[in-house]
Amino acid sequence: MMSDYQKEITAYLAAFIEELAGSGVDEVVISPGSRSTPLALLFAHHPKINVYINVDERSAAFFALGIAKTKRKPVALLCTSGTAAANYYPAIIEAKYSKVPLIVLTADRPHELREVGAPQAIDQINLYGKHVKWSVDMALPESSPSLLRYVKSAAARGIGIATGNPKGPVHFNFPFREPLIPNLTDDLFSKSSNGSKSMQKDVKHGKKELPFTATASLQAVLSKKKKGLIVCGPNINPEAISEIVTLGGQWGFPIIADPLSQMRSGSHDQKNIIDTYDTFLRIEEVKTELQPDIIIRFGAMPVSKALTLYMKDLHETDYWIVTPDEDWLDPNAQVTEMIYCDESAFCQAFPKESDNKDSTWIEKWKLINDQTRKHMEKTEYELDEGNAVRYFLQTLPENSSVFVSNSMPIRDIDTYFHNNQQQVSIMANRGVNGIDGVVSTALGMSTVTKPSYLVIGDLAFFHDLNGLLVGKKYSLDLTIFVLNNNGGGIFSYLPQSSEETYFELLFGTPMDLDFAHAANLYGAKYSKVTSMDELQICLEEGRQVTGLKIVEVMTDREVNAVNHRKLWNSVSQEIIEILNGDE
Amino acid sequence: MMSDYQKEITAYLAAFIEELAGSGVDEVVISPGSRSTPLALLFAHHPKINVYINVDERSAAFFALGIAKTKRKPVALLCTSGTAAANYYPAIIEAKYSKVPLIVLTADRPHELREVGAPQAIDQINLYGKHVKWSVDMALPESSPSLLRYVKSAAARGIGIATGNPKGPVHFNFPFREPLIPNLTDDLFSKSSNGSKSMQKDVKHGKKELPFTATASLQAVLSKKKKGLIVCGPNINPEAISEIVTLGGQWGFPIIADPLSQMRSGSHDQKNIIDTYDTFLRIEEVKTELQPDIIIRFGAMPVSKALTLYMKDLHETDYWIVTPDEDWLDPNAQVTEMIYCDESAFCQAFPKESDNKDSTWIEKWKLINDQTRKHMEKTEYELDEGNAVRYFLQTLPENSSVFVSNSMPIRDIDTYFHNNQQQVSIMANRGVNGIDGVVSTALGMSTVTKPSYLVIGDLAFFHDLNGLLVGKKYSLDLTIFVLNNNGGGIFSYLPQSSEETYFELLFGTPMDLDFAHAANLYGAKYSKVTSMDELQICLEEGRQVTGLKIVEVMTDREVNAVNHRKLWNSVSQEIIEILNGDE
Repeated sequence: MMSDYQKEITAYLAAFIEELAGSGVDEVVISPGSRSTPLALLFAHHPKINVYINVDERSAAFFALGIAKTKRKPVALLCTSGTAAANYYPAIIEAKYSKVPLIVLTADRPHELREVGAPQAIDQINLYGKHVKWSVDMALPESSPSLLRYVKSAAARGIGIATGNPKGPVHFNFPFREPLIPNLTDDLFSKSSNGSKSMQKDVKHGKKELPFTATASLQAVLSKKKKGLIVCGPNINPEAISEIVTLGGQWGFPIIADPLSQMRSGSHDQKNIIDTYDTFLRIEEVKTELQPDIIIRFGAMPVSKALTLYMKDLHETDYWIVTPDEDWLDPNAQVTEMIYCDESAFCQAFPKESDNKDSTWIEKWKLINDQTRKHMEKTEYELDEGNAVRYFLQTLPENSSVFVSNSMPIRDIDTYFHNNQQQVSIMANRGVNGIDGVVSTALGMSTVTKPSYLVIGDLAFFHDLNGLLVGKKYSLDLTIFVLNNNGGGIFSYLPQSSEETYFELLFGTPMDLDFAHAANLYGAKYSKVTSMDELQICLEEGRQVTGLKIVEVMTDREVNAVNHRKLWNSVSQEIIEILNGDE
Repeated sequence: MMSDYQKEITAYLAAFIEELAGSGVDEVVISPGSRSTPLALLFAHHPKINVYINVDERSAAFFALGIAKTKRKPVALLCTSGTAAANYYPAIIEAKYSKVPLIVLTADRPHELREVGAPQAIDQINLYGKHVKWSVDMALPESSPSLLRYVKSAAARGIGIATGNPKGPVHFNFPFREPLIPNLTDDLFSKSSNGSKSMQKDVKHGKKELPFTATASLQAVLSKKKKGLIVCGPNINPEAISEIVTLGGQWGFPIIADPLSQMRSGSHDQKNIIDTYDTFLRIEEVKTELQPDIIIRFGAMPVSKALTLYMKDLHETDYWIVTPDEDWLDPNAQVTEMIYCDESAFCQAFPKESDNKDSTWIEKWKLINDQTRKHMEKTEYELDEGNAVRYFLQTLPENSSVFVSNSMPIRDIDTYFHNNQQQVSIMANRGVNGIDGVVSTALGMSTVTKPSYLVIGDLAFFHDLNGLLVGKKYSLDLTIFVLNNNGGGIFSYLPQSSEETYFELLFGTPMDLDFAHAANLYGAKYSKVTSMDELQICLEEGRQVTGLKIVEVMTDREVNAVNHRKLWNSVSQEIIEILNGDE
């Protein structure tokens, strides 16, 4: 017997879900629980929404983040009440700072059972604080026309906020009374591909364009500059890439392209793209030689610390940041023009050609960049993390997507991922650079892309081992390169390395784990690599099989650091010789 | 060369840590990171503070919670900036609701690097929202006398707040500039057992006692009651236990004792302690027969759903809640007197004997309780979760500590942990009943108690597999019984079980994991149990060896639910016969 309350909860939540689906949400990641039952059942019942089950809410949220990041559209997340919801927090924060739309749905006790010691009940109002774009404690389910309009408005509004600039997470908290079982009839949802049972709401986002006066004043500054530099970081709108490249060519400005800018590979013109700056901007002589009079930055700050330090010293340089998001990503407090504008609109606003070009400027950048790359290509392949990444990148198949963990892997990718005409996508969690949830984010990506790879260190791999369960459950196709230096490899490059008494205790932190057992637990194919030959064989064989594959590359923290320093030194010598020879 | 800033950061943080140590903090759980380096190094350098390293911050926080809960004193937690700190959130929320003192220390970027896109920087101000008792964004390190007094005051104040009723977590956010390396000289900290390099601050907590007028008015009500019932839930001050028992005896009130009240075992008088109510309060005839005129509750709401439903129907019963904490743990909104008072002080405030005793009331409770227990003891041992727990409890060595996971294990313990004179302690995360962090909390407990056990289902065990790393690293001594029913066993008891189409997808959620591989990964001894004989052998053998042991008990969700229902039915028949025969 269906109670009136069950009819009300069914109508109310079906309207919400139908509105989400109509606004383009077609995937939901659900962690099992009791209080969330009405939403879980209705999502499962919806003909056009794909349901993933992910037991660990922390992994679930990063998995949803990975899908949303790759598809560039919102994904829904659902869990029960209590600490379950708190496990979403790391991924929500990463989503906020990396500007990924997530629709976070938490189930809650109804008002009369809040803060009175009812089981699994916590104060969930504003649970994620400042780290969601919008948070709403929904009304209790009712099926009156005005409440159905309300719940549909809320869904459309949440999607609108999550997909508006800057994109990000929104949080719906749903109080539910018992009984928790909705009435799953066949005609609850529309089965047609576009249609809906009821009228859909829609949100349209305008684009920011500069007024003419602003363009004119920027143009006046720009026309006096001969040595411009374009810096492209993570999170640039992919549609703007070719326009930025064109602008650089027209003005004779070299383009520093972070690996996450998606500008080091693809079919666009790469002749002005500088890809080895992380190596050559460590050289004092180069930094002195290459003093720009203006920097125009698109996207977030690039990964490279060498670039950051180089830019930090440019006290006389005009510094423009072009971004559609009204934030202030200027860690060195150097910006002279903050330009809140759509990136493509900015590029289109300026004259096609500069009458002020100085080709020696761009040619010098390109010379140093080319020589650095050539020098790096000459280096022999001895097995260390840098070379493992370098070899892996060189043998990447067309259309590969590579997810890269924070800490050392993203730096090795920055060093060795050079310009190429392939369609290769490099992704990472660079909102706040955590080593948590990386496996799950990569698995989320792998549901969308093919072939998919993850490059990760042993600490980050361990941190999200639980993420692998969803890989096993859904037979996802991802090859994971675990660069295992048995601990915190990045600290060997930092001042902490001189603290001998406590270094291994606090920073080295060896775990002594054999990840073959983790592979067995999650049914992944496993190989251990201890030489370049083994890596080569493993890469070749790996391309023949699908599914979850773990390749553990055994490296040594000390050797990695020494080899990096050797490379920087030998590049430095060669480049300095070239600079001196030039003069 | 030591910079002035290094001297300042050293003096400032050494003063903070020395004050924590002087206030009784002798353990810190650190997760590796860079920004937290100054605090990490100084903690490691302190002669009287024990450092645990725990890579996964989520597990680290639960591990600290387990130590603090068991020792009943504050434990410090330290991590770096960014999402690392967000991983603490689930354990912090559990600590808040289960009233466990935690000193949460997060490292942050200095003010000039906040919200400007600096790496690993998030807005950490009030990161944990309403779920910490106090949150403070500390001043940048300085070593002026006034700043040293400030930092010592903050430490003492934080400890004072964390250990005041209700106990709970506090959060210090520390901004640090580079360089991050303090100056670790030999004379930085006092090495004597009590002394400190500088004057310590101390916090004394008074106890709430009722004024005479309040006692008199309560006494006036109480003197008219013949059928009182004392209900003891989790989180009672252990010092009050014998006084509550005495009060019950004097007044002729049976005492319903939750397994987490610590009143079902120990050397105190147990003749009035009712331990099988979760079974017999499912019988309608019993509920009608046993109608109290007053309930006096100590501690939080007990685990038993049968008890909750029984109490919910008592609309004419006076309901007093005695608690030193000014909260309102009354999910059914039934309280008639909320008594904010120290539990011991409350017990001492009343006359030693009631002149109003009706012994038939307490004898009826004891008869039903005894008959229920006897009936349960007659039941044969067929391997299911209930019987595995029952057998395990019967063979527990003296001084055992048993950590119990939420969902089904705590219910099985509630059913089968009967009155005994052993010193056995039962613990669980019953603040908000999550299935997250249970392995780590138990491992935290195991650093304090011996022998230590954990009883946990497969989903909760999976959720915190990462917790096992610290067990391996520190060779902790814990035996883990994994009741593996391959999924969410509790849902077989709930209305969700009738939703056949989506049940396995959303609620059954089988993981199909062989935990032998997890045991191998973390170097744990492993046994798989598929019969009662194997369980017996395994328990006997297990007592001979120390270290991390995983005993996987293979059970069936359907069989567990059927057997529980069988037991309830047969107890019900027998008790109804007794009630009818009595009349």
